Amino acid sequence: MIERALGSYELVATDGAARRGRLVLAHGILETPAFMPVGTVATVKGLTPADLHEVHAEIVLSNAYHLWLRPGRNVLVAAGGLHRFMGWDGPILTDSGGFQVFSLESRRKVDDDGVTFRSHIDGSEHRFTPENVLSFQEDLGVDIAMALDVCVKLPAERAELETAVRRTSAWAERSARAWRRGRTLLFAIVQGGLDEDLRARSAEAVVALDLPGYAIGGLSVGESREEMARLARYTAAMLPERKPRYLMGVGTVRDVIAAIDAGIDMFDCVYPTRCGRTGRAITRDGDLNMMNARFVEDYGPLDPTCGCSVCATFSRAYLAHLFRSDEMLGPRLLSQHNLARLISIVEEAREAIEQKRWSSFRDGLL
Amino acid sequence: MIERALGSYELVATDGAARRGRLVLAHGILETPAFMPVGTVATVKGLTPADLHEVHAEIVLSNAYHLWLRPGRNVLVAAGGLHRFMGWDGPILTDSGGFQVFSLESRRKVDDDGVTFRSHIDGSEHRFTPENVLSFQEDLGVDIAMALDVCVKLPAERAELETAVRRTSAWAERSARAWRRGRTLLFAIVQGGLDEDLRARSAEAVVALDLPGYAIGGLSVGESREEMARLARYTAAMLPERKPRYLMGVGTVRDVIAAIDAGIDMFDCVYPTRCGRTGRAITRDGDLNMMNARFVEDYGPLDPTCGCSVCATFSRAYLAHLFRSDEMLGPRLLSQHNLARLISIVEEAREAIEQKRWSSFRDGLL
Repeated sequence: MIERALGSYELVATDGAARRGRLVLAHGILETPAFMPVGTVATVKGLTPADLHEVHAEIVLSNAYHLWLRPGRNVLVAAGGLHRFMGWDGPILTDSGGFQVFSLESRRKVDDDGVTFRSHIDGSEHRFTPENVLSFQEDLGVDIAMALDVCVKLPAERAELETAVRRTSAWAERSARAWRRGRTLLFAIVQGGLDEDLRARSAEAVVALDLPGYAIGGLSVGESREEMARLARYTAAMLPERKPRYLMGVGTVRDVIAAIDAGIDMFDCVYPTRCGRTGRAITRDGDLNMMNARFVEDYGPLDPTCGCSVCATFSRAYLAHLFRSDEMLGPRLLSQHNLARLISIVEEAREAIEQKRWSSFRDGLL
Repeated sequence: MIERALGSYELVATDGAARRGRLVLAHGILETPAFMPVGTVATVKGLTPADLHEVHAEIVLSNAYHLWLRPGRNVLVAAGGLHRFMGWDGPILTDSGGFQVFSLESRRKVDDDGVTFRSHIDGSEHRFTPENVLSFQEDLGVDIAMALDVCVKLPAERAELETAVRRTSAWAERSARAWRRGRTLLFAIVQGGLDEDLRARSAEAVVALDLPGYAIGGLSVGESREEMARLARYTAAMLPERKPRYLMGVGTVRDVIAAIDAGIDMFDCVYPTRCGRTGRAITRDGDLNMMNARFVEDYGPLDPTCGCSVCATFSRAYLAHLFRSDEMLGPRLLSQHNLARLISIVEEAREAIEQKRWSSFRDGLL
């Protein structure tokens, strides 16, 4: 066996813009395209690491902003790092807090040097800079750290997007300088909203840093699905072919397919787990609302084409009963099924790309 | 292998009043003493059947009153019975609704013929009689059905207890006549509050019916721990030696030990799962509140002497983090650990009785 270098990305196959790759990380090899379940505060809601392995999750996303506030660096380091703390032995990617610039707009102030947040937990002030956020992620021992960026809500004025791109580029450069180049890889983020010129400027700036990977941020934040797909495709084409590409915050089955079609390798979204908690099942036949009366007497599995243990064990009638009774097992089981369903689609996408039948697979799903 | 008859109870060993037995049920052999996790509405809150097997649960308790209202007989029968519906292949015992005479006092009217409940879900009226409740449980295909009884809140006037005993006895007799004598065994219940005369009268009436098993109801409903233990012991001694004895609604580690010491074979309680949901861990060193600040930086397992997968995987610091973050994985993991802990104590109790060292085991735990 040839030992592959940490951070190396092998392009196994392509079909059109779609890519089938393999990324070497400290806690394992990531087969791409890869869907990353979201475990914001060191837990994918309701599921254990064993459940995540069962649904074939290969990597988990967690969030530096949330972990910084609670449990905080001291606990995470004393626990032996984020992996040991949450009991997950596979790769972990942490987002930097740039998304919270968008989602916690009323609780933060951005300047050229960094971001000051007022904690959503206790109102305390926390100063995030490119350097201290990266250092935090490295101290946690994660596989991939995201550079601090400025994510803007859409639609936005060009001036605001321009400032965000300028800061995101400068912060990526500062992150690259501060990066320890150890077991934690650094990915930088492209911003620029729906403006192609700004996207190009942002991509150029971060690509020049020659980092292990790049992300497309600032999408799935208010624009239409078509705009999202257009900008993802436009931006992906400007990123290096031999580096992994991550589209942040995507998405539904349809969005994931669009992302792969645009040449994206990695994506994350709360969609499967949030849907799972609210009674929405992802199936081959589209999303099903388990509160719908017709499922009360439907004794078939959630999705007859799904091989997950939830579909093998429980009926739609039972899931409907759990949601109607507000029983915590419902959200757990549906989250597990939804992740299994989405990840199995991504696994099939890999095979389709390898076998040069991506476009028929894509069209069959949509 | 000798085929043992359904409902037969073998007394494997005794040590003082403590008993080690084996009860043949339709879905498996129940080793006693046995703790029954509570799955009121066809789910042990937060846990799957696979989790229940993992913590060595042998039998699950569910509740006829709740299942009657939702999902109802039609769904449960069409689903292939309660076992198929909830995905649990081991024995199930269903309580009859008699406990809801106590717990839903404001929503029911009792007369000599039965109980009328106003549903806690939608206010609709439902008439429960000894015959239709037993028939319902038999239609569900459970292993053990409880006869309808009248459970009285303590303290109570003697007249109220006397009426409850009279009705409970008459209803047990009607249940015995209606019983199909198929795969569902019928257990009758002894009532009588803290009054020894009434307990004796109640026990005499139901024992005369020669049913497969007997339960002691009307305890853990407001009296002291000492009174509970005294009445359990007093009543157990009046039940047939060669039949299983079930003390309803017990309990904590201390109560379970007291019950075994009184000659009880089976018990159920929401204690381990309810504690699990509220952040209370059952350990060898007593109960621990995971919201306590000292656990935030405690990197050891919940209980170093526990062999469950929660203790093997996660630290007290992680559990504390989950509860502080109000994450649904916390209640799930703690419920699982608490059941594992309580059931392992009962398993050790069995061994201690077999080896005639029950009293030293008991004293060591208390």
